Amino acid sequence: MTALTDLFTYQKDTEALGQIAGRLGWDQETMMPRGAADQRGEEMAAIESVLHARRTDPRIGDWLAAAEGESLSEVDAAQLRHIRRSFERASRVPADLASELARVTSVAQGHWAEARGKDDFASFAPVLARVVALRQQEGQALANGGDTYDALLEDYEPGATAVQLEAMFAEMRPRLVELRGKVLEKPAPAGLSGTFGEAEQMAFTAKLALAFGYDLSRGRIDMAVHPFSSGSGSDVRITTRTSATDPFNCFYSTIHEVGHACYEQNIDAGYALTPLGGGVSMGVHESQSRIYENQLGRSRAFTGWMFEEMKTAFGDIGVADADAFYAAVNRVQKDFIRTESDELQYNLHIMLRFDLERALISGDLPVADLESAWNTRFKADFGYDVPKASLGCLQDVHWSLGLFGYFATYSLGNVYAGCLSNALRADVPDLDTALAAGNTAPATTWLRDKVQRHGGLYEPREVITQACGAAPTAAPLLDYIEAKFSEIYGL
Amino acid sequence: MTALTDLFTYQKDTEALGQIAGRLGWDQETMMPRGAADQRGEEMAAIESVLHARRTDPRIGDWLAAAEGESLSEVDAAQLRHIRRSFERASRVPADLASELARVTSVAQGHWAEARGKDDFASFAPVLARVVALRQQEGQALANGGDTYDALLEDYEPGATAVQLEAMFAEMRPRLVELRGKVLEKPAPAGLSGTFGEAEQMAFTAKLALAFGYDLSRGRIDMAVHPFSSGSGSDVRITTRTSATDPFNCFYSTIHEVGHACYEQNIDAGYALTPLGGGVSMGVHESQSRIYENQLGRSRAFTGWMFEEMKTAFGDIGVADADAFYAAVNRVQKDFIRTESDELQYNLHIMLRFDLERALISGDLPVADLESAWNTRFKADFGYDVPKASLGCLQDVHWSLGLFGYFATYSLGNVYAGCLSNALRADVPDLDTALAAGNTAPATTWLRDKVQRHGGLYEPREVITQACGAAPTAAPLLDYIEAKFSEIYGL
Repeated sequence: MTALTDLFTYQKDTEALGQIAGRLGWDQETMMPRGAADQRGEEMAAIESVLHARRTDPRIGDWLAAAEGESLSEVDAAQLRHIRRSFERASRVPADLASELARVTSVAQGHWAEARGKDDFASFAPVLARVVALRQQEGQALANGGDTYDALLEDYEPGATAVQLEAMFAEMRPRLVELRGKVLEKPAPAGLSGTFGEAEQMAFTAKLALAFGYDLSRGRIDMAVHPFSSGSGSDVRITTRTSATDPFNCFYSTIHEVGHACYEQNIDAGYALTPLGGGVSMGVHESQSRIYENQLGRSRAFTGWMFEEMKTAFGDIGVADADAFYAAVNRVQKDFIRTESDELQYNLHIMLRFDLERALISGDLPVADLESAWNTRFKADFGYDVPKASLGCLQDVHWSLGLFGYFATYSLGNVYAGCLSNALRADVPDLDTALAAGNTAPATTWLRDKVQRHGGLYEPREVITQACGAAPTAAPLLDYIEAKFSEIYGL
Repeated sequence: MTALTDLFTYQKDTEALGQIAGRLGWDQETMMPRGAADQRGEEMAAIESVLHARRTDPRIGDWLAAAEGESLSEVDAAQLRHIRRSFERASRVPADLASELARVTSVAQGHWAEARGKDDFASFAPVLARVVALRQQEGQALANGGDTYDALLEDYEPGATAVQLEAMFAEMRPRLVELRGKVLEKPAPAGLSGTFGEAEQMAFTAKLALAFGYDLSRGRIDMAVHPFSSGSGSDVRITTRTSATDPFNCFYSTIHEVGHACYEQNIDAGYALTPLGGGVSMGVHESQSRIYENQLGRSRAFTGWMFEEMKTAFGDIGVADADAFYAAVNRVQKDFIRTESDELQYNLHIMLRFDLERALISGDLPVADLESAWNTRFKADFGYDVPKASLGCLQDVHWSLGLFGYFATYSLGNVYAGCLSNALRADVPDLDTALAAGNTAPATTWLRDKVQRHGGLYEPREVITQACGAAPTAAPLLDYIEAKFSEIYGL
């Protein structure tokens, strides 16, 4: 078993270097002096170059070939599955294509930000066309004769296919469009009003993080422009942001990132610094962040507790009682921005992007036509016109970074969260009693046991299927959304 | 010139990875969650292993051999000098010795901390003996037939020798011992009293950092247990600490670290991420931190400004006027701890360590006898007994980390600072007028121009000699100390 030992020893250093690269990313968004950006670019390029060389080292192929012939434990077999997938994917992409993609996407992000600032998609279109062309090439190299888009998807959600996702969205779209129309005919509930100081929001956000089981001895909370979670094992950090008029932005961002972070923190410690030591896919990751944020954090029971806590922390917050607070937390409004969307409309944003990016990658949609295609589709699903590109096809950074295949995992996460929530409530019938006291432990313990602790041991759909006792479908999420918003809006 | 280009391209990534390792060290002391220590150890080991492999890559030898035959600019020749030195030193140490040293010293630090906590040198002696034995082996490998201690010294102060340092200390010791005796017969000036809140100290410390020219757009100030400066180029961070009763501890630590940080920040930007892009030696580095801290920061002129600023920031600080404040800043007291020592006694602490560690490395002093040798020497130079090991031979972490040859560079820095201060005052006769207004620019601009901007371009003694117009000697420092403390203490 020398090959196995050698491979795992080698892999451990690669994982450790990956953690370092992640921590540099965290530092860049939280601590780095603004004048250090160029130097940081060189540092990131250096460590990425080391990582790429390690991931494509031909010795990995030899070790794998020798080890795969052995009789392996379930854990070791899973480790090898991850290593082989990573090795084959890294090896299939020619080095000059990989470095051209890195170069072009790092520049494209700046062009995107500039174009968004000017609401000028046309100036960004040629840059985006170059990114699309390179990702098409990469997808073809990765697909090895298979479907190009599926090959890109594989980076974020191993095993998922566009055909599967298309069927899932086909089930979701009509029900969500219909419900959205009915809800928006009703008057919108009032929002909060009051004084929400930055320090007080950060203190409250820490209280929420602890309430959801985030372990601050192995993490920390800082402010950043965009909330995110970063790191695995015993160093999993989150960021959040405050808004003087909208404390929910801070609090629900925090609960969302805590969901991601707790997934990482709760993985079996024996998997640390191995391929099993991180969340298994973007979709499963998002299922944890979304169930923490929505099915738990935006539940009537939990918001009842949160209402009392917010009154204690902030005084008069402008809503009369727990019912009004619950309605404010779950307010549905006409808006254009995905990241600020409610549970009802969120997946409509995603399926729009999914269809458009598939058409971009297949070549059916020329990049030059993206803005008009976006606006037409938006009108069809949301019912009104996009007034400018920054509220439309320039709102997200993803495509400028070459992240095609990524958006769908957000919806997949929502669907998984719907299934998990059903199974959780079946297993823990008195969950609301605990949530109403601010006690999430029955839920988070169940999630740790059923999903989180396994890390990368099972494939994404497999871990959800095992946790729920059935293969995931969109129905539980749709039923939950329809019940919840019909009740709040009196439909 | 392909070899030169290839070598420099390769070296740039090595330097960038070195910066990353340094930033991980900063993170560990400032931001890292306490539960992440073990994982961080693995991460550090992984990047150190990458760095070691890069520094000993045989291609470096080939590139050097090809490039050294070419006609080279002064800058390129200096780059090659640094790369060759690093390559030869890294290549001379057998890999198993290097990894054994890393392993033993990482464990030894914990043993040292435990022994210091119990004031029990005997329990630490066997561990230290192992560190000494390994460093002896390493020194012999590095020396290649030359002097073992000089070979260790070369890591911190290229070109310095024990014989040179011995002569320097021989000149310093009698004059400092005599002055110390006279000063301590006089009554000690009063210290500060008042209320010095943590937030107020940190605000004042930032003001001092700016006053000394620290560029916060390329740096930041955080709290840590031990003050330090970290990083090169456009990301140079410092730490400090506060003390409720002793704000000078915070402020002069800050000015000291700002001296280190400004050296790094002021190096020619064209040298960034090359071997010339960092301070050239520990001694020259310490010359910058010490001249900022002492010859400038503890001068009568600057403390006059600082006294008024402190009254504004803290109200009544318990001293009547600028003269009393100046005396408090420069108070000489009986004490045992090097890091808390004043300008007068500091170098006595260093020469004690220098003599003892040379004897340890030569084998003349068995490790088991270190404590008694320390206590005997302390009595001879300071005039009283060491009551316990934590105030004696267990006070510093250095030897547990294998840092033999390091201490002397502190005194060398003081000596260089004495020479630089003389040359500075000859070139800028009205320096005190500016300092009395809190304006350090005439001094820091001179230091940037004469020393800092060169980075690693010249050898350590060379850059000091060029700046001062004469080779460095201890006389200017001794004359300065005698004049300053005779005046304060009325000798």
